[in-house]
Amino acid sequence: MFPPSLRSLIEGLARLPGVGEKTATRFALFLVTAEEDYVRLLGEQIQGLSSSIRPCHRCGFLAQVRSPDEPPLCSICADNHRDRSQLCVVGRMQDLLAIERSGAFRGRYFVLSKLLSPLDGVGPADLPLEALARRVHEDGVREVILATPPTVDGEATALLLARELRPQGVRVSRIASGVPHGGDIEYADQITLGRALEGRQLIE
Amino acid sequence: MFPPSLRSLIEGLARLPGVGEKTATRFALFLVTAEEDYVRLLGEQIQGLSSSIRPCHRCGFLAQVRSPDEPPLCSICADNHRDRSQLCVVGRMQDLLAIERSGAFRGRYFVLSKLLSPLDGVGPADLPLEALARRVHEDGVREVILATPPTVDGEATALLLARELRPQGVRVSRIASGVPHGGDIEYADQITLGRALEGRQLIE
Repeated sequence: MFPPSLRSLIEGLARLPGVGEKTATRFALFLVTAEEDYVRLLGEQIQGLSSSIRPCHRCGFLAQVRSPDEPPLCSICADNHRDRSQLCVVGRMQDLLAIERSGAFRGRYFVLSKLLSPLDGVGPADLPLEALARRVHEDGVREVILATPPTVDGEATALLLARELRPQGVRVSRIASGVPHGGDIEYADQITLGRALEGRQLIE
Repeated sequence: MFPPSLRSLIEGLARLPGVGEKTATRFALFLVTAEEDYVRLLGEQIQGLSSSIRPCHRCGFLAQVRSPDEPPLCSICADNHRDRSQLCVVGRMQDLLAIERSGAFRGRYFVLSKLLSPLDGVGPADLPLEALARRVHEDGVREVILATPPTVDGEATALLLARELRPQGVRVSRIASGVPHGGDIEYADQITLGRALEGRQLIE
């Protein structure tokens, strides 16, 4: 019933995360009746995304492209007030954002973009191990904090990275895993409780 | 923390209905890492929306623009199997879509795009009364079904349209209002129950 170009727009919008056909239709009907300037600008922004945003050449986070000759540098790597000696390794950009929101870390990051995953055919050769080692060496990093998720893939990746980095003479730590803040001990799963006990700290 | 062009994209996406900053950020991060061809096409589709889709010149529903000289015609108005003698007047395109999904109507539509609303400054002069009268006359419509919503604005609009159309010698009807299918009589509001009783029909 919809005109062809609206139908293909709905299909495209339905690929957004968490958006089904119904929500995509709602978005499309909104766009088709919205202010023309806004819609045109939104389309331009999406279309130009791949040329305006690139992974930061140092950490892999998002960086604005300023000129084609200049390697893209994100705002975190460009910030000289941040501690170069601490490097936090995350699996995905979203995890970096969550840690930034917590305000608990003032060092710099390294985004792996993928985790070891034998089932999906991701092996050690697919991880940016060399770039990470170069980064640690060049920046004189003293501590690498492994903030990959406490899942099978995340733990395997953390173990691999620790094995690769320790010979470089750098401290390698792993973020704590345990019962989350506000969480219920009664309903915590066995593995979480096991980790919470294992990772207990002395109250001094 | 985000590069400027990503930040403005997030602002644009956050104007979509039901989308807040968090969801907009999720969409933007998805787009920035998604397949380039898909993202570029999506941007193009949004950008070209206002030139590829126009209101149907007969009913106001969405129509594909085929050439700049040809007035846009929607798939419902173009369908000769549909009954020209019944015209269903709706407030919004979304209402037309809901009636189409029900499969209960095989005539044609007229989309008002707005309802009488003294509070928002929408008076009779703002409604497409002339276009509607022309449509009724030209198509030889025998019944106009008023499917504006059973709200204050929708009822006022229906009354106005009935008053305008009846002198043209056309039957004017109003969709029934009552307790919805599967609804609970105990929890139905007074006005709905009043309408359900008023609109009762003999069981023969």
